[in-house]
Amino acid sequence: MSAYTFDQDTHFERVEPGLYRGQLSGNYNIGPVPNGGYVASLGLSALTLALADSERDPLSVTTHYLRPARVGPVEARVEVVKQGKRFATALARLSQEGQEHAIVLATFGVLEGAREPVRHVTGAPPSLPPVADGFRPPANDFIVIARQFDTSYDPESAGWMQRRGSGRAEIKGWLRFADGRAPDLRSLPLFADAMPPAMFGVKVTGWVPTIELTVHLRARPAPGFLRAVFTSRFIFGGFLEEDGELWDERGVLVAQSRQLAQVPDR
Amino acid sequence: MSAYTFDQDTHFERVEPGLYRGQLSGNYNIGPVPNGGYVASLGLSALTLALADSERDPLSVTTHYLRPARVGPVEARVEVVKQGKRFATALARLSQEGQEHAIVLATFGVLEGAREPVRHVTGAPPSLPPVADGFRPPANDFIVIARQFDTSYDPESAGWMQRRGSGRAEIKGWLRFADGRAPDLRSLPLFADAMPPAMFGVKVTGWVPTIELTVHLRARPAPGFLRAVFTSRFIFGGFLEEDGELWDERGVLVAQSRQLAQVPDR
Repeated sequence: MSAYTFDQDTHFERVEPGLYRGQLSGNYNIGPVPNGGYVASLGLSALTLALADSERDPLSVTTHYLRPARVGPVEARVEVVKQGKRFATALARLSQEGQEHAIVLATFGVLEGAREPVRHVTGAPPSLPPVADGFRPPANDFIVIARQFDTSYDPESAGWMQRRGSGRAEIKGWLRFADGRAPDLRSLPLFADAMPPAMFGVKVTGWVPTIELTVHLRARPAPGFLRAVFTSRFIFGGFLEEDGELWDERGVLVAQSRQLAQVPDR
Repeated sequence: MSAYTFDQDTHFERVEPGLYRGQLSGNYNIGPVPNGGYVASLGLSALTLALADSERDPLSVTTHYLRPARVGPVEARVEVVKQGKRFATALARLSQEGQEHAIVLATFGVLEGAREPVRHVTGAPPSLPPVADGFRPPANDFIVIARQFDTSYDPESAGWMQRRGSGRAEIKGWLRFADGRAPDLRSLPLFADAMPPAMFGVKVTGWVPTIELTVHLRARPAPGFLRAVFTSRFIFGGFLEEDGELWDERGVLVAQSRQLAQVPDR
């Protein structure tokens, strides 16, 4: 097995066709609750195993969260809904003690094929100070997930960590695995939910539970840091969207994410 | 049955618990292929029927397209994955002649509850000329779907319809049902895919097939026109994202959409 924590924490054994067993790790907890991006990457790992023969890349991965996950044994039941010439679609149901806690629906295809009939990119990587000049929060026993990453936040967007709200629902910074594991497609859903809620720039509340997270994988990331930016433009009615972009060190957009989350009562 | 076309075209009869039958209409075709937003609204209609007793609103609806739909009979097999106190999650599989063509996964909850612990809205409705000053394209036998809507495009963003590319992957305008039916949550996925691809502002290609479409429903729309804007910022590697916003006449964001689509070869 790989020596990297993420690989160990997303490892599944095949029990029978379509049924996989693993351990849901406590390494990505926020307090008692495992992070939603980790759960999405866990589901994607089971899907990737089930589709391993097809040599396809995940393109779009949607996770709906039914209830909080718990640290401990986890089962993934995978159904390949369609395997076509170009695309494959599959569904993973994650359960613990017989109770489903997440559903992951994904379509696979081939990234970085030769064809590029139209190219038009108007987005750009977030502007960030050099890694050494960013804000690196001290270790925190509650935010266990933070230990898995080497993170350098843009100081302004992370001002609330030092009790200075920025007034903007945006958080951005550099991000990589603390143990040196290179980012890959399978880990991008975790990266897409690895920073604190963008909303905390406006108001620090209780944790923001994700209802649904969709990640588009757009390119295989190069080794090194990812540049990440997360923004919420529509916080109202008790819900919010959070849009994320992950860029690799080459300046290539490797993932776009959007989640719908519940604004906590306090 | 309702006299409105959309209601007729999304009508399902319950065959047995969890199984519904309807007719997939030709009213939303682009050439031979029914529109993806219509397919998403069709799936949402079956889900809404299955969850009718729970009086919940759809919050997030993701559709993965397995193959093109066809005009004719359609079956929806609905599974309520979880019915909780606040949220319900359900899955619809749409099939024709025994072959699945779309999977719709949605979470339901209650919109416009009393709680609004944080409010922070930085987005704004798209700026548009008055409805009377917009561009209204002539009827077109290929784009059958256009007949279902009363649409007034921002002339610049729709310049390609008169062979003037805008150089920008954005399309925006006013949009409502041609027969006077008010927009509602169930029809918003259709509205979220009812304009031509934003990419056509850069290059008019063959039709752009959607791989996955996610729509967040944020408020029940007021009667009248919707203001719609769709943008693609990342067209590369043979894929594109298209982000949409739908605002109602009160100036409330009623839906946000994002799709991943394939850039056609020509």
